[in-house]
This record gives sequence, C-alpha cells and structure tokens, in this order.
Amino acid sequence: MNVAFLQELLSSVAEQGRLLLPRSLFGAGAEEDIEALALALISGRGEASGVAIARELLDRYVQLSQDDRRKFFRFLATELKPDPERLTAAARGYVDNPSDVALSLLQKAIDSPRLEFFRRLNLAPGATAEIVAMRRDLLRLPIDDAALAAVDADLRRLFYSWFNRGFLVLRRIDWHTPAVVLEKIIRYEAVHEIQGWDDLRRRLDPADRRCFAFFHPSLVDEPLVFVEVALMRDIPDAIGPVLEEPSGDEPAKPPTTAVFYSISNCQEGLKGISFGNFLLKQVVEELVREVPSLKTFVTLSPIPRFAAWMERVAAGSEDVGEPAQLDAQLLLDRLNMSDAIEVAKNPDFKAPLMSLAAHYFLVGRDNLGRTVDPVARFHLGNGARLERINWMADPSEKGLRDSLGLMVNYLYDLKEIERNHEAFANAGTIAASRNVRSLLKARGKAKVPAEAEETPALPPPLPAKTSS
Amino acid sequence: MNVAFLQELLSSVAEQGRLLLPRSLFGAGAEEDIEALALALISGRGEASGVAIARELLDRYVQLSQDDRRKFFRFLATELKPDPERLTAAARGYVDNPSDVALSLLQKAIDSPRLEFFRRLNLAPGATAEIVAMRRDLLRLPIDDAALAAVDADLRRLFYSWFNRGFLVLRRIDWHTPAVVLEKIIRYEAVHEIQGWDDLRRRLDPADRRCFAFFHPSLVDEPLVFVEVALMRDIPDAIGPVLEEPSGDEPAKPPTTAVFYSISNCQEGLKGISFGNFLLKQVVEELVREVPSLKTFVTLSPIPRFAAWMERVAAGSEDVGEPAQLDAQLLLDRLNMSDAIEVAKNPDFKAPLMSLAAHYFLVGRDNLGRTVDPVARFHLGNGARLERINWMADPSEKGLRDSLGLMVNYLYDLKEIERNHEAFANAGTIAASRNVRSLLKARGKAKVPAEAEETPALPPPLPAKTSS
Amino acid sequence: MNVAFLQELLSSVAEQGRLLLPRSLFGAGAEEDIEALALALISGRGEASGVAIARELLDRYVQLSQDDRRKFFRFLATELKPDPERLTAAARGYVDNPSDVALSLLQKAIDSPRLEFFRRLNLAPGATAEIVAMRRDLLRLPIDDAALAAVDADLRRLFYSWFNRGFLVLRRIDWHTPAVVLEKIIRYEAVHEIQGWDDLRRRLDPADRRCFAFFHPSLVDEPLVFVEVALMRDIPDAIGPVLEEPSGDEPAKPPTTAVFYSISNCQEGLKGISFGNFLLKQVVEELVREVPSLKTFVTLSPIPRFAAWMERVAAGSEDVGEPAQLDAQLLLDRLNMSDAIEVAKNPDFKAPLMSLAAHYFLVGRDNLGRTVDPVARFHLGNGARLERINWMADPSEKGLRDSLGLMVNYLYDLKEIERNHEAFANAGTIAASRNVRSLLKARGKAKVPAEAEETPALPPPLPAKTSS
Amino acid sequence: MNVAFLQELLSSVAEQGRLLLPRSLFGAGAEEDIEALALALISGRGEASGVAIARELLDRYVQLSQDDRRKFFRFLATELKPDPERLTAAARGYVDNPSDVALSLLQKAIDSPRLEFFRRLNLAPGATAEIVAMRRDLLRLPIDDAALAAVDADLRRLFYSWFNRGFLVLRRIDWHTPAVVLEKIIRYEAVHEIQGWDDLRRRLDPADRRCFAFFHPSLVDEPLVFVEVALMRDIPDAIGPVLEEPSGDEPAKPPTTAVFYSISNCQEGLKGISFGNFLLKQVVEELVREVPSLKTFVTLSPIPRFAAWMERVAAGSEDVGEPAQLDAQLLLDRLNMSDAIEVAKNPDFKAPLMSLAAHYFLVGRDNLGRTVDPVARFHLGNGARLERINWMADPSEKGLRDSLGLMVNYLYDLKEIERNHEAFANAGTIAASRNVRSLLKARGKAKVPAEAEETPALPPPLPAKTSS
Repeated sequence: MNVAFLQELLSSVAEQGRLLLPRSLFGAGAEEDIEALALALISGRGEASGVAIARELLDRYVQLSQDDRRKFFRFLATELKPDPERLTAAARGYVDNPSDVALSLLQKAIDSPRLEFFRRLNLAPGATAEIVAMRRDLLRLPIDDAALAAVDADLRRLFYSWFNRGFLVLRRIDWHTPAVVLEKIIRYEAVHEIQGWDDLRRRLDPADRRCFAFFHPSLVDEPLVFVEVALMRDIPDAIGPVLEEPSGDEPAKPPTTAVFYSISNCQEGLKGISFGNFLLKQVVEELVREVPSLKTFVTLSPIPRFAAWMERVAAGSEDVGEPAQLDAQLLLDRLNMSDAIEVAKNPDFKAPLMSLAAHYFLVGRDNLGRTVDPVARFHLGNGARLERINWMADPSEKGLRDSLGLMVNYLYDLKEIERNHEAFANAGTIAASRNVRSLLKARGKAKVPAEAEETPALPPPLPAKTSS
Repeated sequence: MNVAFLQELLSSVAEQGRLLLPRSLFGAGAEEDIEALALALISGRGEASGVAIARELLDRYVQLSQDDRRKFFRFLATELKPDPERLTAAARGYVDNPSDVALSLLQKAIDSPRLEFFRRLNLAPGATAEIVAMRRDLLRLPIDDAALAAVDADLRRLFYSWFNRGFLVLRRIDWHTPAVVLEKIIRYEAVHEIQGWDDLRRRLDPADRRCFAFFHPSLVDEPLVFVEVALMRDIPDAIGPVLEEPSGDEPAKPPTTAVFYSISNCQEGLKGISFGNFLLKQVVEELVREVPSLKTFVTLSPIPRFAAWMERVAAGSEDVGEPAQLDAQLLLDRLNMSDAIEVAKNPDFKAPLMSLAAHYFLVGRDNLGRTVDPVARFHLGNGARLERINWMADPSEKGLRDSLGLMVNYLYDLKEIERNHEAFANAGTIAASRNVRSLLKARGKAKVPAEAEETPALPPPLPAKTSS
Repeated sequence: MNVAFLQELLSSVAEQGRLLLPRSLFGAGAEEDIEALALALISGRGEASGVAIARELLDRYVQLSQDDRRKFFRFLATELKPDPERLTAAARGYVDNPSDVALSLLQKAIDSPRLEFFRRLNLAPGATAEIVAMRRDLLRLPIDDAALAAVDADLRRLFYSWFNRGFLVLRRIDWHTPAVVLEKIIRYEAVHEIQGWDDLRRRLDPADRRCFAFFHPSLVDEPLVFVEVALMRDIPDAIGPVLEEPSGDEPAKPPTTAVFYSISNCQEGLKGISFGNFLLKQVVEELVREVPSLKTFVTLSPIPRFAAWMERVAAGSEDVGEPAQLDAQLLLDRLNMSDAIEVAKNPDFKAPLMSLAAHYFLVGRDNLGRTVDPVARFHLGNGARLERINWMADPSEKGLRDSLGLMVNYLYDLKEIERNHEAFANAGTIAASRNVRSLLKARGKAKVPAEAEETPALPPPLPAKTSS
Repeated sequence: MNVAFLQELLSSVAEQGRLLLPRSLFGAGAEEDIEALALALISGRGEASGVAIARELLDRYVQLSQDDRRKFFRFLATELKPDPERLTAAARGYVDNPSDVALSLLQKAIDSPRLEFFRRLNLAPGATAEIVAMRRDLLRLPIDDAALAAVDADLRRLFYSWFNRGFLVLRRIDWHTPAVVLEKIIRYEAVHEIQGWDDLRRRLDPADRRCFAFFHPSLVDEPLVFVEVALMRDIPDAIGPVLEEPSGDEPAKPPTTAVFYSISNCQEGLKGISFGNFLLKQVVEELVREVPSLKTFVTLSPIPRFAAWMERVAAGSEDVGEPAQLDAQLLLDRLNMSDAIEVAKNPDFKAPLMSLAAHYFLVGRDNLGRTVDPVARFHLGNGARLERINWMADPSEKGLRDSLGLMVNYLYDLKEIERNHEAFANAGTIAASRNVRSLLKARGKAKVPAEAEETPALPPPLPAKTSS
C-alpha cells in the first residue's frame, strides 16, 4: 500500500511541477509539438525544467497515433543522432593516432544525443515504465525501416545499463502479494495459462508452491520476469500433477526436488535484456536457504519447436541425416497419418518419437548452427543439463500442437553449471544425461527406420525398440 | 529495520552463492589474484558464475594496499580497453562511409570491456556502494597517471546512467530516521558542521525545520546529497539565528520563507554527477505541497572563495580593473592590516567590502572565464538570482577565513528559473537583484578608492559610502 | 509480505517455545486433556510457561468435536466461575457497609477466573483470532444452556475491552491490497454479493470507488468491518448504477456525494461489539480530507425486514392501525396477489407501497418498542436522517424478497448527528426528511385505502397519491 | 518513517473531527469544563461524538495544574463510581440467591462508569499514551487520599486487559532504529546509565550485542520495557568488560552465553503491569533461533538493597540471627570502618562479604516474609536460579553505594524454569547453585573474621550457626 502511496505522491509532485512552470511553456498546449519538446529537453531548457518537459512529452506521446509514433521515432533516428562531421573528425583523429586522448574524444563524439534524450526523459516520475513501453511500440513497428534500428540500439544499450542485475530486487509472489501484481502474473504467464484467480491461488498459496519475480525499483508493481516452482519428492514426468490442486494432506516427508515449471518474461519492451538466468540462480539460492531438504533443482519444460521441426524433417526440408528423416517419415508420412498429434498420443510410437526428440536436441541445428530449441538454448546456455525427455507429459492442445506432448527436464547441478556453460558457449557441447544419450544411441543401434522399412507391418516392431 | 533485514538476507544469499561454487574456483584463495578474477568476470565464466566472482573480487579489492589498488586500476586501464585494431578498422570504416551500419559497428567497437567489467561487478549484492568507493579511491590517487583518466571516464559514464535522477528517491530526514542514516548526516555535513546529536536534533526535529536527501535504491542507508531547510518569516541575513535552538513558543504565524542553509554532497565517488539541482527543485515542490503558506525560496550560502580572491586582488595577481584593486588594497594592504579578518569585522569597512563582494560576483571571472564562486555557479546555473549580500552573516572561524564573514541569499523564483538558467548558460549573464547591482554601482559612483586616496586619513571617509 | 513474515516468525517462535518446555509437560500428549491444560494455565504453571500451555490448549481445542467443545464450554462455565462463598461474603460485606474498601473487595471477588483464563490464553502468538473463533463456536451452539451465557458474557466483556475503537486501525482496501485480504472482502460482503474478482475490482479500483476496513493489530489480514463507497454527483435512487462498471470516461466534474452502499461485519465471534458507527464517521473524515469536493454523505441501504412486516400487516398479525393495514391488504390480499414481488414491481402500486414503507419506518414498532428495521436502528442511532425511500431500487432476487425492491438513503449531516442521535436514543424520535414524512401524510390525507375500497377499479386512484 | 506518517495522519483526522463538530460543543472553549466533558463523554453525546469529546478532554487535561488534576481525579473517584443503591440491591440479590442470573446482575451493577469513561477516552487518536500518562500523574500524587485508590484500581484493571502480552510486539533495537526511539532507550535505561549516543552505539551496534523491547501497537515509538544483552563465551563476573567497547577483532569462536545485563521498565504509568518476565523468555527464544551456538542464558544483576541491609544488620535493626550479625559488625563496626565502601573494596574482606551476601539472598526476609532483594524476587519468581555472586563486579559509585560492588548472575535453565517458579511461588524455595550455597556454609568454615582479626573469640561460634 506504501508503494501506491508513493506513486500518488510522486505524480502529485509532478503535477505540482507543471503548475509551477512558466505558463509560456505549456500554456497553449498544442502550440509546441512533441518534436519541439524533445529538442527543448536536450537543450539548456531541459537542464532547468527537465522534469516538467519530460512529463509533458510523455503525456503527448501516449496520445499519438501509431503513425505519429513512427514519425516521432524517425525524428529521433535522424535528428538526434551523433553529429556526423564531428564524429568523422574524431574517427579520423583516432585512426591517425590511436592515443588515449583520441579515444576519449571519439567516445564523446559518438555518444548519441538520443541517449541523453532518453536519460532526461527519465526525469519525470514514473517515466521508466513509459520508456520501456516506448521500446515495445518501436519493436512492434514493421521492421522495414533501417533507421529505426539505431533508436532501438540506443534504448537497448540504456536498458542494459539501467536494468543491471545489481538493481533488480527478488520478491516472492504469494497470496499476500497485492492484487495489482497478481493480475499481472495471470496476464504475463506464457507457458501454462493461468485460468483465473482460483488457478492462481493453487499455484501460489499451497505450502509446496513458490513463485518469485524480479522487480526494478522504478517499475513499481511490474514484474520483469517470474518463475513458478513446485516442491516435490521426485522429478515429475508430466505437467498434470504439477498443476493440479495439491491434496489437502500435509506431505509426510519434506520435499527434495524443486521443479521450475514455468518461466515468463513480462516486459516486451525489455526484449533482449536477459534476466531469467539470474532469476533461476537466485531462486535456487533462496530455496536452498529456506528449504534445506531440497537437493535437486530441475525444470519441467516444453519443447516449443519440436512439432514444427518434425514436420520439416518429414517433409525433407530439414537435413537431419537419413536415418532420422526416415524415422520421421515412418511416423508421420508413411503411415498416412496426417495428424501428428495422433502419433504423439499413440504409445506404439513412443520409442521412435523419443528417439527423434533426442536427435532434435543433440544433433539438430538451426540455420545459425545453434541447437534448434530456444528453451534448450536458454537452459543449456545457463549451465543446465538435459536430464530427461518425458512422453505425453503435456497433453494440452498447445502441448500437443507445439511439442507433440513431450516435455523435458533440465537439471541444474550447481557443481556442473560453470563447466556446462563454458562447454556450451565455447564449443556448442550439449550436456545431457546418459538416459537422453541412450535414446539417440538406441535409435542408431536399433536402426529403427531400417528395420521398420523391412517390416511393413507397423506397430509390432516398434515396441521392441523402447529402451528408456 | 526492513532494509537491514534485506541487506542481511542479500549478503547471506551471496555467501551461499560462494559456497555453492565449484571449489576449483576459489578453493585455493590466494592462487587466483584479482586480475585473474577480473578477466574471469568478463569471460564466459562470468556469465555463469558472475555473482560469486564479483563478490570475491570485491572482497579482494578491499584488502588491497593503496599501491596494489593503483596497480589494479592500471591493469583495468591497459588490459580492459577497447581493442585498438578493431576500433581502428571501425573508425576507418566510418570515415570512408558514415552510414548507419558503420556507426553501429563503431559504437560496438568503442564500447569498453571495462564498462562491461564494472556492470558485471555490480552483480554482487551490495556492490554498487563498493564500486562508488572504488572511484573514490581512484580520484584520491595522484593524478600524474593519464591512463587512469580513461578508467575514471568509464566509471563516470556508468554512474551518470545508473544514478539517473529518475531512479533517485527523495526521503525526508527527521527524528524518525534510523540512527545509521543520521550519523551519516552528521559526518557528511559540509557547510556548517553539526556538533553532535543534540545539534542534529535541533536541525531536524523542530516543527520549522526540514531536511531532505536523495537516496538510490541500491545504496541503502547512504544519502547521496541532502539539504537542510529552515522555515521562517523573512529572508535571514545571518546564519546564527538559523542554527540556534528555536524558541519553544509555537510561531504565531505560518512561515512564508523556506531557507536552504546547507547542501552537502555525500559521496566522493560520485563527484561530477550532479544531484543538487534536482534536489532543490523537488524539495521546493515538496514544501509547496506541504506548507502552502511558503512563498519565498531562498538560500543562505557561503562565499567560499571570496577571501582568497580578495588576497589575490590586493596582491595584484588578479586582474580586476584598477578601481576594484585599489579598493582591495585600500582595505587590506594600505592599512597594514595583515589580518583580513579584522577588516571583515570592522563596521567601518562594511561598505567597501560589500562593494568588492558585488564585484566578485558580477564582474570577477576565473581562468576559465567563469564566475569565480563555485557556489554561485551552482545556484545561478540552477536558475536562481543573486538576491542579497549579508555582512558579518557568518562570524565562525571558517566563515571569516573563507568568506570574510559574508553570506549570500540566492533566490529561487519559479517564474524566472528557466530564463535565468538559459541566460547564464548561454551568455554568462548573472541574475542579480537591484540591491546587489546597486552595491557595485555605489562603488563606482562613490569612487571609493579615489576618494580614499585623496583622503589619507582613513576610516572617516568610509562610513559615507555605506549605501546598503 | 512483511506481515506474513511476521506471522511465520511468531509461529516459529511459539514452536521453539514448546520444544524448550520440560518434556514432562507435553511429552505424553494425550495424557493431559484440555481441561487439565486450562487449570494449568490459570495456576502457577501458567505464570511460568503460559505461552506454551496456551498454544497447546488452542491446538487441542481446534481438534475437538462440536460436542467436546460444548463440554469444554460447560467446564469453563462451571469450574472457572467466581468462588460463590467468597463472593457471597464480599457481597454481604458491601451490603452491610458500602465503603470503598468493601467495593474493592467485592470487585476482586467477582472477577471471574474465566477472564484470567482467556487473558492468559491470549499469550500464545496469534491467539486473539482463535479466541474470537471460540466465541463464534459458542454462539453457534443451541442456546438452551443457560450456564453458557456466563461464558459468553465474559468473552464479550473481554472483547469490548480488547477491541476498543482506539486500538483499531483504518486501512483503505484497494487493488494494492494483498489477495489474502481481498478474498475475505469477497467472502464477508453481506449486502450485495460480490461475484468474483472482476466484480471486486469494479468496486475497489475505479477512481470513484473506495473501500475502507477496520483492522485490529492482533488480527492480521482479518478485517473486522468494511464499508464500500461510491463517489457520485447525486444521491442515487437505485443500486444498479452503483454496482455497474463505471464508464471509462473520466468524470468531467468532481464528485459531491459519497454513497455508502454496503457495510459488512466480518467476525461472527465479535457479535455485539460495535464498530460500524466509528467506521462510518472516520471514513467521512478521511474522505473530507482526501476529496474536498464532497459535501453530502449518504447511504443506499436495504430495508431487510420490510417484506416480512408487510406480510404480517396484511395478515393482521401486526397492529399498525387500521388505515395502514387496509393499505397492505389492498396491495397484497384483496388483489389476490399471492406474490408480493409482483406488487413491488408494479408501477401502479408504487404510491401505496412507498406510503407503507414510510409507515414502517416512522410509525412501526417491534415487540421491544423499537423501530422495526435493524438497518434503520443502526443509522438513526448513529445520528443519520432518513432522507429518501427509493422505489424499485434493488430489483435483485434478494432485494425483492426482503425489501420489496425498495432502498433507503440515510443522510449523515455532520451538523445534525449529535442532535439526531440524542433525540433517537432518548425519545425514539426518528429524524426524517420532509420528503419521507410527506409520504406518510400523503397516505393519511389521500385516505388511500378508503378511496380504494370505494373505487373497485384500481390503478386510477393510485397515481393521484404519488408524491415523491 | 511510516509510523510518523501514520501519527500525522491520525492527528490530522482528529483535527478534522473537531472542526466538523457542531460549534455548540466547543465553540466557547472555556465554557464547558473538563468535568462537564467527562460527563458528556459517558452520556449519549459521547456515543455520537466520542472521538471529538475525548480529544478535547485530553487537551484540557494536559493544561491542568497539578492541583486541578488532583481535583479531576477526585471527581472521577466520587462521581463516576458504581451506583451504590443499584449495587447494594444487586449484592443483596446475590446473597439471597447466588444464581447465574444474580451473578450477572451483580457484575453489571459493579462495572464502574469510570472504566467506560476511560474506554471512551481511548477513542481519541493517540489517547492510549495519554491515559497511561494520566495514571503516572495519579501515582505521583501524595497517597493520603484513599478515594483515589479506586481510580487507580480501575486504570490498572484496564491496562491489565489492554496491555495483555498477546498484544505486545517484540522489536529489536539497533542502529537502524529511529532516533526518536533510541533517545528513549537512553532516557529510560535504569540500571547502567547510558552516557550519550556513543555509549548507546557501543551497546547496540556491535555484532555481539543485542537489545530488544516490547511495544504496544497504540503506543507508537514508546518502548514498554527493554533488555540489553551481550553475547559472550563465559558467564561474566563483572560489568566492566560487558560495557566496554568490544575489541575490533571478530571473535574467533561463536558465543555460547547470552548475558542479560540490564532490564528497564519505561512507563511509570504501567506500574504493576508485568512485562519483564515475558520479555526475557521471548528474547531467549529469539536468540536460540538466531544464534544456535548459545547454550547459557544468564543475567548480570545488581543487588540494590544489599548495602542498606548490611547497615541494618550491623546496626542490629535487622534480625538475622546472631552469627550473621556478628559477621556484619565485624566487617563494618568492629573495624571502625565507617565507610562500608572501603570494606567492599578490600580483598581481605571478600570472603565474609560474599558469605553475608549469600545470607542476604538465601536466609534474609523482609517484613512481608519475602526474599529481601526485589531483583532476586523478579528473577527467582521467573524461574531462574541464583548462580553466582561476584565480588567487586560493579565498582561504579552507584554499584558500591547500593550493592557494595557485588553483582549476581541469575541463570535461566529452560528445563528448570517451571519447577523453580512453582517452588518459589508456593514455598518460597530459592533455587541456588551449589557454589552460592557453599558461600553460606563457607562462612562458617572459613572462620573469616577470626583470621582477619586476631580475635580468637570469634571463629568458634560461627560454624555452629551455618546451615540455615
């Protein structure tokens, strides 16, 4: 409630600020347009009356149409860029003599007036959230406009500095959290949709559930990223039991396993500024401290690009090596099963599906040579290990459509994190459990597709291959 | 008390973090020196274990001798600077074709690894204060080392972004403030020394006293800048009554005048990052809101360089035009008064002293062509007006030694602030009241030195010149 | 979140306390039953180990069956009452010589050991809420047991002291309030049911809505009583527009009228301890301070006993004077309208219905000679004035069933409150607007029933009587 | 700072309340005197406008002279007592037939209007502290007025209910505590005077120091009782090292012993309402939780009545049995040492002094048959054990004057507390260590005075007398 009080206070203060301003500045209102205000803000007037000008500009901005916003970003792109002449001179100076002094001059010449513009814009109370929203607007614009990329680069540079991990505050989200924050948790949940307040309560309130979020002191009531955790006694192999109402009975035994089953970024305007990795690690530390019985830290994650990859593989548009392709064809094409979801659900096809999934993770690469799966890139890049692939772990519509019902556990072993991270970052090496590796090998050895081809009478041979 | 709890929590979490780290990293302790840790921090290892490496590095830093700190800053200066080859190439590319793309490449090439180093250092809980202290150490080093200037420039750039006004929080300091903050108010007060807790209470607790400070969310319990205010019914002409115990009687009438009688910057490591101007303006707004009877906002300020300027003038080493110099000589030299303080105290010399003070403000310029007085530069640059010069307003030892007992009122008239600021910033025009201007004219007209010279019998003629 | 932390801390401390206790006390667990614990608590052992004994006793109590609870209350009634012999002696002593000393001895003799028992029970952290719940249990028991009345009287006496208005804290309930409190607002709302979280938000979050509650420092997260307020520009004549989603448009003009449209007591166990009157007055003060444009403070209230009264009147079982009875018969009986609700909805019967309602308020009396309506007793006793009766103001099922669709505005005129209260308290005088009085007169003058009887063709004559 | 804000809010609300009141009530101000206000408060007017009347009455009260206060208390004593006729009737009714109903009627008749008066007085914001101050004023009046005892009894009864342990909040006092509270710690410290803020900091801020206080939610910024604790590795035998600046070196080993070296009650007006016992126990639990290495909980306490007792013994005015008296005479009288303090300091007399101290504790009784020492009564009654008597443990002036330099350790052994308490409460049995008991015996055996004095006559009788 304090925070609300603070906000109110702040805005009333800003209000006052405007009232105190010389009437000449805003009296006419429409007279001075947003571009004039922007120029005023980075001029000497901005030094004297920055708070009020910034507030006025932000109020104008909000009322702009999308077209006018685009126009305004273009203005920022072209009018508030570094002075080319001065910069050329400084660059030449450095090329001629790369001294410390020349470097310093170059640094000054290249510092964009736009950066200063945004920094001064932040003078207005509550401005940070509005500047973040500006970048959201910018990112939503059609990207055919190269000039705007420079504006985005400046904003991103600024946010990278402002939203430094050291300034973020970890807060537990629970049933004592204000509703104004909780409704954002409902809105921003990106992995397993929250079905209203009762569902929310199920995820926050029971003794074996946790939720943590990062906040920035200047973005009041606005989580940046949050993670939902279930405290269990085993690594779960399906999302159902995790989301269900826990039984009323107090668990007889203390939990051993923290399961991160949903991580959601909240601020579109902070795209590309990474918080999730810090969040996971700090939550691990927090949980270790609070619940000493916890020994295992693991995710239960979707495989959001798996179904699409399978289709490309089956269609031959993905080069995965012949055996894998044949596997996929076997499953999708040769069976005349137009609906991949039917395959996903069929226990007879569990083995080849799991095998292909292992291939997807361990062998598959995207155009940029990276592991295909973005969630995998996040956790593996974070130092986790691919621990287990779970069949029919998410039978929801979305789960079947995107991940063919599969889910994955990434395991965070604190002793391995640094090693895994470096191996992945430097050599693309993917840390995976023997269990997952064996799925791949199983396929190889069993020559699934080959055998399959020889035996046209499908199902029968398939069960034999299950090895997990 | 919450904040303390938070700090404790944070540090225990960091502690945990270290314990959880692979022993390889810190096991040997002394094996890996601070430079190796710095390199680790900006490497891939820093991405995986940044929090712990940053914490360890900061702990090592604190134990370094001054010499080793200097060595470490040199290391940062030489080893963590932008790659010259890459930068030269990018600079050349921009010179050849100053396109958006070339600009973007140049920006990336010039971004100093040091900046990233400091940003990652800030991962450790509580690090911000320690990085600010690092810059304090750096600024205290002998400045014969040009290479270190680049390190300072990076830190300053970083702090300029981190300590953006939009992130600062205004808090009232009063008798409900925790002692841990109050003792810092005592320590940091830079204008009129606070003589222990009773004196502090006199300045904070009475109904007609206020104190406000800016805080940064990551610098817990550490004010950045604070201002002390007395609510009065007139513009005071001396500091004595302002600092004295207020009479117990409730003032019959509501205050009309807010007097800012002390502004102190607290963080040596944030030198050059300006907060005072924002503080004053926000405090004005705060007071307007809280005490609607207030109409006048004014300072009572020292003139810290006046005595030194007088000496230079008397010695002829300051070129102030003949009349002013003669005035000064008249006062200091010709009278064989070795002690300027005796002059300051002597009512007979009030008029020429005041006149010279007006000259000091309105005409005097330093080597850089600026108004001599730094306090004047702050308030005039802030949009205030030089309202009044007060004779024998601060008879303390420091007041006599530095300011020859004079004090000045700068008046903040909200309707003038922007105009004054721009005139001062663009043309060096000094906003001053007619009263102050007349002091200067008085001298002119009265031709003080001339008359003085004609009449060898001093004192007598002087009284005639008093005009204020 | 702090509060939750505190609670956790407190309960862990209590936990500790128990662990630290000599095993002899609770080791056997089942050995010592709740009555033994109660005796221990008021003995010397209770002085030494009160916190732990109280905690244990409360834990046992919660697990008792309803029968065992009743047994336990009987135990308190019979075993922990004042010592009859000592009391008889003291009473006789006072009768013989009513001195100060005799009075003091009598006071000591009459002080019930039960009171001390409950006071010591309150030593356990969080006990207050549990003792309040005990009284709830007690009140729910069949009331055929006279002995239990003394237990209730003691609890009530205790709560009257503990829940003194001076200890209650007014808190605004809004969208920043923790969900754990908000869900109780949903649950406890007793007048106009809240249909889930969206409805709740409609009542709390818009700029022209307020909700305030009283809390007791020892009943964390538990409102005692709350009131919902709509800020409007007129006195509303129906509940519909008050509960509807406000239009998105910011109201052009500031609100003039605060409408209290729902007051709900939350704690069954605090029955008979009155907070609502203090709440209303403090909320008025709060609103005056926050929204200076407010001039009128008014309720929109149900008439919960009106329909039942009408039935009794129509049935002749309520002695209301002949004219009123005939009116009622006319409406309900003679028309062969078995369904009073049909009458309520029919505009043709508006006038006689309103007239009867005026009779209900101004003339009707219950068995105890009081104004029939409990809500009226509350507001009139509070110093309000019966301002207006509104036809078809609450067409909900409950509104029609209980109040025949009517609602009432009670107006709080601060200048009248004390006078109204005293007139009502001393003489039963009901403050009512001329408007309401005229409804009664209208009936009298128009002789509704008489005319009605003469003119079998109903409707026609009725319109003539409308006066509102 | 929140609390201050709250207070401000509350008082502004009360202010409002008064403004809103009918002018008739307070317009003339002097017209209605405090007695009239008191009568108004318990009348129907008090029900309607209680908050404002209570506020006005309290404001009047503060301005009364001591004489007028006394007059006002007499008014309360005589005018607001239970109606004698009604009470006599009810008492007679109970004597005739001691039924539940008669008991209930008697309870109602005896309930003092004064209690209701004070309860309504508490309606005014901030009133609780003022009512507590009222009782302080009352207790300070000369006690020759028996009628006032009834007023005190009512206040005490009220406070006993209001300040129930269950409503008190334990807060740690440290360097993060607001100055407004800390200055009260300095003021209220009753055992070892705090010499200004530096001394305070020494007691609160070091890592091995703790201070805890009980607060009541309605007495903001006002501690009720506080205890200072040093965390050490041994039971200290002198106060000096406890109060000294701790060495800067972090203690190598974790503390094992919590030493309560000062407990101070803060509120004179709450005399007789006991908090200290609860405070000690809760602090023990708090410390056990926070510092698991602590195993021993012990006090270092003065013996405030020892010197006076010695004098009485030496003078023969205290009947202690012949041997003890001779001992005392030996020390004080026969040696012609008029100054007991010289005896206290003299190592030669350590043994008999210690022996006499043991006698003082274990054998000595006051007029009421109680252990002489009030501090001993508190700790022994609390379940502690007399662990050790320390010679020359407090060489301060006060320490020598009151306790002849001796100090005592009372040890809280959680396993013994209940047993010790009951033995002390029921049988006056004093729990003491063998060490202390042996002092008493030693006195006999050691033949102290004989050796000391060459007087052969002495020793013999002594041994015989030991063993009591």
